[in-house]
Amino acid sequence: VEPQSDLLFSSRHMNLDSTRVSPVFWTVSDVVSYITAVGFPEQAAAFRTQEIDGKALLLMQRNDVLTGLSIKLGPALKIYERHIKVLQKTHFEDDFC
Amino acid sequence: VEPQSDLLFSSRHMNLDSTRVSPVFWTVSDVVSYITAVGFPEQAAAFRTQEIDGKALLLMQRNDVLTGLSIKLGPALKIYERHIKVLQKTHFEDDFC
Amino acid sequence: VEPQSDLLFSSRHMNLDSTRVSPVFWTVSDVVSYITAVGFPEQAAAFRTQEIDGKALLLMQRNDVLTGLSIKLGPALKIYERHIKVLQKTHFEDDFC
Amino acid sequence: VEPQSDLLFSSRHMNLDSTRVSPVFWTVSDVVSYITAVGFPEQAAAFRTQEIDGKALLLMQRNDVLTGLSIKLGPALKIYERHIKVLQKTHFEDDFC
Amino acid sequence: VEPQSDLLFSSRHMNLDSTRVSPVFWTVSDVVSYITAVGFPEQAAAFRTQEIDGKALLLMQRNDVLTGLSIKLGPALKIYERHIKVLQKTHFEDDFC
Repeated sequence: VEPQSDLLFSSRHMNLDSTRVSPVFWTVSDVVSYITAVGFPEQAAAFRTQEIDGKALLLMQRNDVLTGLSIKLGPALKIYERHIKVLQKTHFEDDFC
Repeated sequence: VEPQSDLLFSSRHMNLDSTRVSPVFWTVSDVVSYITAVGFPEQAAAFRTQEIDGKALLLMQRNDVLTGLSIKLGPALKIYERHIKVLQKTHFEDDFC
Repeated sequence: VEPQSDLLFSSRHMNLDSTRVSPVFWTVSDVVSYITAVGFPEQAAAFRTQEIDGKALLLMQRNDVLTGLSIKLGPALKIYERHIKVLQKTHFEDDFC
Repeated sequence: VEPQSDLLFSSRHMNLDSTRVSPVFWTVSDVVSYITAVGFPEQAAAFRTQEIDGKALLLMQRNDVLTGLSIKLGPALKIYERHIKVLQKTHFEDDFC
Repeated sequence: VEPQSDLLFSSRHMNLDSTRVSPVFWTVSDVVSYITAVGFPEQAAAFRTQEIDGKALLLMQRNDVLTGLSIKLGPALKIYERHIKVLQKTHFEDDFC
């Protein structure tokens, strides 16, 4: 997955307007839509239960995703490595550009 | 959130007199008022349950907030990153000035 | 255990065709067969429960295996040290050759 | 709290004779008396339940006190930072003098 | 405890022949006998429950002993620091001599 395209893909599928492409502005529902859109509909509900909005998503570390959401380990590993980590990398790189 | 203003904001809303602005002197009730004042009324009670006064608040690390209070992960991440960490930074900087 | 022979052994016993020798292409069932083939039939089911496919297997760290699968500590230590770690080492070395 | 006085205070209140001032020689009951004497009577029982004598006390790390005793987080943070850590520092400094 | 004598003591009390003095060759029952022989009969059963043989014992880290065996914290701290750590140190030193 190429970071930028992951964001474009999700923004298109989540009907986000351009001002809300940045995860900083995502509501809890946007996070749930994003996790669903990238292929983990069964795990998405846990993000609502734990009240993870975009700002919280950007603060999550590996262990928070693996043990703090009560989701299965296999999907948790992929959600963190392929999506959350990439989203954070893209976000914090943008900050420094 | 600008550190100093967070403290001023909380001291004004908590009716703290000037000698108690420093978290070192906060009682458990002051901590509960502070967590409520900065936007987390639902999570504030957990600080009373775990008997966190100002001195204990200054000793908390990220993982203590995320796993030791039995509060939701999203709010826990923000309480730590935006408030407790900032409070500690301000407090320990004051010490060295 | 010599890394390469562990992979050859497992591919032979799992009826994997050559294009699927790399753990990247293993399904959850391939992972379960692999854990069974290397001597841990009782622990193999936990990999299915947690939906660990080959890609997730390559992302697992020591603590994930020891605490995230609810398997006994003795077998967990050996599965990680002798097999998962070796598989990852072989896989990521191949990447850089 | 000044380390040496903490030890003197506790030895006086625990009726320890001089040969038992060093935590190395404390029994589980001495540890319970010490935790009570320094202000945590409600948490002291947990040290008996977990069979912590002086030698074990000197081996405890921050996380062991916070998560291994099933005591409230606020008192746990203070017991570790103000007492156990100080006791260990004093003890291991004595070793090297 | 002097490492070498701990091993000699245990080998004598466990009726191990010389070829099995190295923990690498210990069965789960040998580990249980060893933990009993060094003074922790109540904790020894947990090593059987978790299927810890000599090879697994050599792979255990501090946190595995403290949280993975469901034994009391005081004895766990001593078992790790005085025995398992010493056994590992002796074993891996032998490897490099």
